[in-house]
Amino acid sequence: MTAAVTGRPLPLHVPIHGYGVSDDDVLMVDGVPITEHAKRIGRTPFYLYSRRLISERIAHLRRTLPAGIEIHYAMKANPMPAVVEHIAPLVDGIDVASAGELAVAIRTATPRHHMSFAGPGKRDEELQAALEAGIVVNVESPAELARLLRLGEASGRRPQIAIRVNPDYELKSSGMKMSGGPKQFGIDAEQVPEVLKSLHGADIDFHGFHIFSGSQNLDGKAIAESERKSLDLALRLAGDAPAAPRFINLGGGFGIPYFPGDKPVDLAPVAEALAEAQVAARAAYPGCAIVVELGRYIVGEAGVYVCRVIDRKISRGQVFLVTDGGLHHHLAASGNFGQVLRKNYPVLVGTRVHGDRREVASVVGPLCTPLDLLGDRMEMAVAEPGDLIAVFQSGAYGYTASPTRFLSHPEPAQAFT
Amino acid sequence: MTAAVTGRPLPLHVPIHGYGVSDDDVLMVDGVPITEHAKRIGRTPFYLYSRRLISERIAHLRRTLPAGIEIHYAMKANPMPAVVEHIAPLVDGIDVASAGELAVAIRTATPRHHMSFAGPGKRDEELQAALEAGIVVNVESPAELARLLRLGEASGRRPQIAIRVNPDYELKSSGMKMSGGPKQFGIDAEQVPEVLKSLHGADIDFHGFHIFSGSQNLDGKAIAESERKSLDLALRLAGDAPAAPRFINLGGGFGIPYFPGDKPVDLAPVAEALAEAQVAARAAYPGCAIVVELGRYIVGEAGVYVCRVIDRKISRGQVFLVTDGGLHHHLAASGNFGQVLRKNYPVLVGTRVHGDRREVASVVGPLCTPLDLLGDRMEMAVAEPGDLIAVFQSGAYGYTASPTRFLSHPEPAQAFT
Repeated sequence: MTAAVTGRPLPLHVPIHGYGVSDDDVLMVDGVPITEHAKRIGRTPFYLYSRRLISERIAHLRRTLPAGIEIHYAMKANPMPAVVEHIAPLVDGIDVASAGELAVAIRTATPRHHMSFAGPGKRDEELQAALEAGIVVNVESPAELARLLRLGEASGRRPQIAIRVNPDYELKSSGMKMSGGPKQFGIDAEQVPEVLKSLHGADIDFHGFHIFSGSQNLDGKAIAESERKSLDLALRLAGDAPAAPRFINLGGGFGIPYFPGDKPVDLAPVAEALAEAQVAARAAYPGCAIVVELGRYIVGEAGVYVCRVIDRKISRGQVFLVTDGGLHHHLAASGNFGQVLRKNYPVLVGTRVHGDRREVASVVGPLCTPLDLLGDRMEMAVAEPGDLIAVFQSGAYGYTASPTRFLSHPEPAQAFT
Repeated sequence: MTAAVTGRPLPLHVPIHGYGVSDDDVLMVDGVPITEHAKRIGRTPFYLYSRRLISERIAHLRRTLPAGIEIHYAMKANPMPAVVEHIAPLVDGIDVASAGELAVAIRTATPRHHMSFAGPGKRDEELQAALEAGIVVNVESPAELARLLRLGEASGRRPQIAIRVNPDYELKSSGMKMSGGPKQFGIDAEQVPEVLKSLHGADIDFHGFHIFSGSQNLDGKAIAESERKSLDLALRLAGDAPAAPRFINLGGGFGIPYFPGDKPVDLAPVAEALAEAQVAARAAYPGCAIVVELGRYIVGEAGVYVCRVIDRKISRGQVFLVTDGGLHHHLAASGNFGQVLRKNYPVLVGTRVHGDRREVASVVGPLCTPLDLLGDRMEMAVAEPGDLIAVFQSGAYGYTASPTRFLSHPEPAQAFT
């Protein structure tokens, strides 16, 4: 928390920006206290996404990245229709990961050629949906390409094709490695020339390349290095393409700080690499756009998860705040989604941000498992039943990435300011 | 796999019992090939639970545990209504973990006093639902008790109360420690006498104690030791109770083998401890029943998760079977639900169980994350698109414990033979 929010340094928290505190010590989202949001929503727990913070984040990207760089929203991070509708006119394209996401994306005004569909296991129905919508399919394997061509021919829809490439290098410092070595994602770089040659004369539109090297990367220099390598690889491969590429999608992978010690990514080296990439791409193929595809970076810090304290209990000297939310609503905050070592997300008592009295407490949920832990012995205001707990950095991979049916508890609500 | 299933030892798998193989090499569940099940269900992926295996497992428990021991079904393991309806008449009671589960349980013929509700964060609506249904509430804190008494008085419903105790010892060798030290579960043993004394003269029915020490324990001797200690603790605490206990619920925690090297739990020492417990409890309180509460042990081995191969791709020498299922349907099998070290669940090609040709392959899903891995480099039959993949040990904490909305893919189906 910044001093503005807590009035004191809290070493257990990464800095949180953009939220306010009311005169009566209540956390505010877009200027409205969360107690008021809770009344409007009608129940707890809920996810609440800030329209203002999303807009500000995209504006920040526009200011920081070179003019002409196309920013796409990777809607898997937060596919809430209202959020997607809000983001669509602010960005240049939308990337979907399933037919379900496509159904939301095509309700926006985003041009179909600025939508792409990536994912290693696209079913025939999904390829057909992409053909019908006329969106670009990022092809992930030779067999998938063959299916797409067959379906296109059968339905009289011309396939819109980009090639997703599994590069022959790895992105440094990435939270999740998604390229290099054997992978289910994309076509191995060394197989791509042959695949491209097979497309010469085929009844398709060729759009370009998608090279994505990892996600949740906080090291701007490493991202920049990866972008340079990806651009080089794409330009090298483009020589065999059936047409000049319309875009080169360098992926995203810009991380956000979650845990103590995490620093926001420095975009300066990224912007520099993208500027160079744009010059190089246009020199080789006038009209070829550089695309970055961002999900978590756009929405992650714009969301809070709010739950209510049901019980305050002290067991052998340790304070437990038992809430109506937990792991089933927010798997990542419980530390059970790909994390090797559990760390606390930034958590505070949203109805007593500063608090007259402070203590160390654990925030848990209603489930019959010790995994159901939202905050492990954190310094926070003394809370009572009825108080609201806020978990920050919850705008991406929260609601949709959680096992909401677990123990048959009610679903969390979702709201957009 | 047993020799009966695979025809050869597969060191990567724990033994699987009770499934058959058809003449054309297809896995059978309750005598029906999974290809036939897939046709009846109409789509993949699906969870399929075996009526026969569930019945056999309960019959095995009845043969192995002493007569008179009450077996409860902890329905959080698998709350599918058809499964609960099937199990209800075969067991002595049902334990619920939420009002959502209660709504399913009360549709069975199980007597209401043989249903109990445990969980550390029961909301007022949930306590009220328990009061209306007349089921036993396993009280987890003094504050929860006060709320229950207040709601009972306000609604004219007499609270049916058991005390969940957080013991002052830990269960050895448990997959999940749920007692001993500071915990959100139950009332600390040392606080229980005072709580019990406060109930003297209160307008309630007192039912007994719930002492649960852990889950997924494969060490029968450790379970037995824990049961002995729990029984001693309950009998010691019962002296302060407002009435003779009607039951002492010693929990369950019987594990099932998931990973190479796991051995099925030896129930002989457990049965011995339960027999002693029954004698001791009846000596002190005639009519006091010993209850064991089992979820995973009853349903876990009776379920398979079946998905279909969409793509077969070879990346840098490694075979990937990309399926229409994955982490979003079966979080535990992907290794992302509380596991520190990822291990493979037993997985095979359900349409080529023995297979003419064998290879080492990885089974992955359609998601854009390397976490989406159902089988990491396992020896199995050579599979092609269209083949079905079966993941065993999937009857408990599968469907409801998975983030099925992730990336907006279709839900898995559920079927009960």
